[in-house]
Amino acid sequence: MDNSQNLSTLGEFGLISRIAAGVSTADGVVTGIGDDAAVTAFTPGMQLLTSTDMLLEDVHFRRAWHDPYRLGRKSLAVSISDIAAMGAIPRWALLSLAIPGDLPLDFIDDFTKGFLSMAAEHGVTLIGGDTCSSRAGLVLSVTIMGEQLPDLILRRSGAQSGDEIWVTGTLGDAALGLKLLDFGSAQPPGLALAPSCSLGGAEWHEHLISRLLDPAPRVIAGLALAESGLASSMIDISDGILADFGHIAEQSGVGGCIRLQDLPLSAEFLRSTEMSDEFPYQLPLSGGEDYELCFTASPLNREKIIECMKKCGVEATPVGIVTSLPGVAVIHADGSPHALQNKGFNHFK
Amino acid sequence: MDNSQNLSTLGEFGLISRIAAGVSTADGVVTGIGDDAAVTAFTPGMQLLTSTDMLLEDVHFRRAWHDPYRLGRKSLAVSISDIAAMGAIPRWALLSLAIPGDLPLDFIDDFTKGFLSMAAEHGVTLIGGDTCSSRAGLVLSVTIMGEQLPDLILRRSGAQSGDEIWVTGTLGDAALGLKLLDFGSAQPPGLALAPSCSLGGAEWHEHLISRLLDPAPRVIAGLALAESGLASSMIDISDGILADFGHIAEQSGVGGCIRLQDLPLSAEFLRSTEMSDEFPYQLPLSGGEDYELCFTASPLNREKIIECMKKCGVEATPVGIVTSLPGVAVIHADGSPHALQNKGFNHFK
Repeated sequence: MDNSQNLSTLGEFGLISRIAAGVSTADGVVTGIGDDAAVTAFTPGMQLLTSTDMLLEDVHFRRAWHDPYRLGRKSLAVSISDIAAMGAIPRWALLSLAIPGDLPLDFIDDFTKGFLSMAAEHGVTLIGGDTCSSRAGLVLSVTIMGEQLPDLILRRSGAQSGDEIWVTGTLGDAALGLKLLDFGSAQPPGLALAPSCSLGGAEWHEHLISRLLDPAPRVIAGLALAESGLASSMIDISDGILADFGHIAEQSGVGGCIRLQDLPLSAEFLRSTEMSDEFPYQLPLSGGEDYELCFTASPLNREKIIECMKKCGVEATPVGIVTSLPGVAVIHADGSPHALQNKGFNHFK
Repeated sequence: MDNSQNLSTLGEFGLISRIAAGVSTADGVVTGIGDDAAVTAFTPGMQLLTSTDMLLEDVHFRRAWHDPYRLGRKSLAVSISDIAAMGAIPRWALLSLAIPGDLPLDFIDDFTKGFLSMAAEHGVTLIGGDTCSSRAGLVLSVTIMGEQLPDLILRRSGAQSGDEIWVTGTLGDAALGLKLLDFGSAQPPGLALAPSCSLGGAEWHEHLISRLLDPAPRVIAGLALAESGLASSMIDISDGILADFGHIAEQSGVGGCIRLQDLPLSAEFLRSTEMSDEFPYQLPLSGGEDYELCFTASPLNREKIIECMKKCGVEATPVGIVTSLPGVAVIHADGSPHALQNKGFNHFK
């Protein structure tokens, strides 16, 4: 690419061509970037799954924290995660960029490389989008399309009383990563962090920050759960397990009880919080941005699920039980209720 | 709806429920608003058409000019227009809203009513989206999905040397409407407007402003052209016929010659510009936001096209000829070349 150019000399159509240059053709893409609409061909018998996410500078990300490559990866990852949460196959993406005047072309190049690397990892093709100028910060909007056979699609609404509540991976890492980045300005009371809190510090801090900046959508695990028929409902954890299992409970007409001591925590999370006066349970419960899967399944499927997830290279942990009573309770190891601080992020508070 | 509420008490999920309350179920929508992804079922044999548009406050619209109801209509109309330009059937939409703290809930209610009224007019169902807070102005992102049989889809790339260049409706109205709204601050040199230039002025001004604020996508005309097989290529005019036919020319590997005196102008446009020193040709050529269709067709199809368009309630006008030589020329009635001022709007200049 010619790096002597800038956005003004390149223009809107030059920018679109520059982005399109990195995109390869793919099965199912009949007409990609460059017409009024993209044209794609479906696998016969499948249904279409669509989801869209908007990411705003200084609301969802900060340019000081998010390097453009990982921002590109994450902007697509959070949408792919929604397709994973339905047990579906991600296929095509649309990307809209509103670009502030001070954004270097290098930033857009690196962002695009990151976006396309995440796309390639999950067999997703960029088929279109929109570009315009922004007077106030970078704005990203990503639409993802996927497909799946109607009977395999996993919804929020299938949980049954008596099912177990499961999560993949570990919880709270991304939320703690955010605290680490924000260290000094927004240290929560009672949360003392182990030494080496600066970016570029200890390895465990890098891991936590990477969970925030470069999340990995659980596509293979979601597909395996859909195809095996082992799960009754599923959602991805973007606002914390408490809020997100709450959506399953609400849409399934059930409730649930989550066992605090069973929440899967990473060694890095434990190492970083070992000096805290009080264990920061609010991070795995309500911290958000985990992009793990939360699903429910009959207790009869427990062994099969562990095996199925192992094949996907993913740890899965049963963390609670679905109840017929509405509402979501959290209990300690001795059965006593855990006092809840908040149920997730509200954009409008 | 309970109007004593505001966005902060309503919260993100309250707002989504409020928007969803206005949406009715529809054929093909298996799972609408409220899961990780929407699920839709396709008409067998059809291909998927997708397009996305982002609209930013003070870039694409001003709250002082665009009342929320018409802004809601337009935010969907511009996307539907992309589906119309492919000769396809619009089906489903996703709507993302980034909402500044000062935006009254009434604004969102009226916006949603407008959006859903446009959706209903074209058989489109809102199936999902995203909502978040914005620190800098309202941001809208709309994704539209449509479908069509593979052989009927009209692209930019099918124009043949010798074809006629056609446009639906009239050109330049929206661009002149913008000048009327901007009157006093951005009066172009040489363009003297007839009296009654304020909003709420003469009827012809209202018409021009309405073309800007409430454009009508040409879905029925686009579909009729696709189904009849009369057109060889098509695009919608969002950046002015010069730039948009330029895309057809480029992607078809041809050029074109546009006859200035044949550009269809509304009575309102002519009435408003009759006092100009110099006729403002740049508005119909490069003004943009017309959302009319520009298409090419064999001259043998001329009568059939006029008849076909008449059945759709749309005037269509042949305005030029496709040439084998690349580039787009504009000529006066005497055949002399018209000096071009600019070729459309560049977001990054």
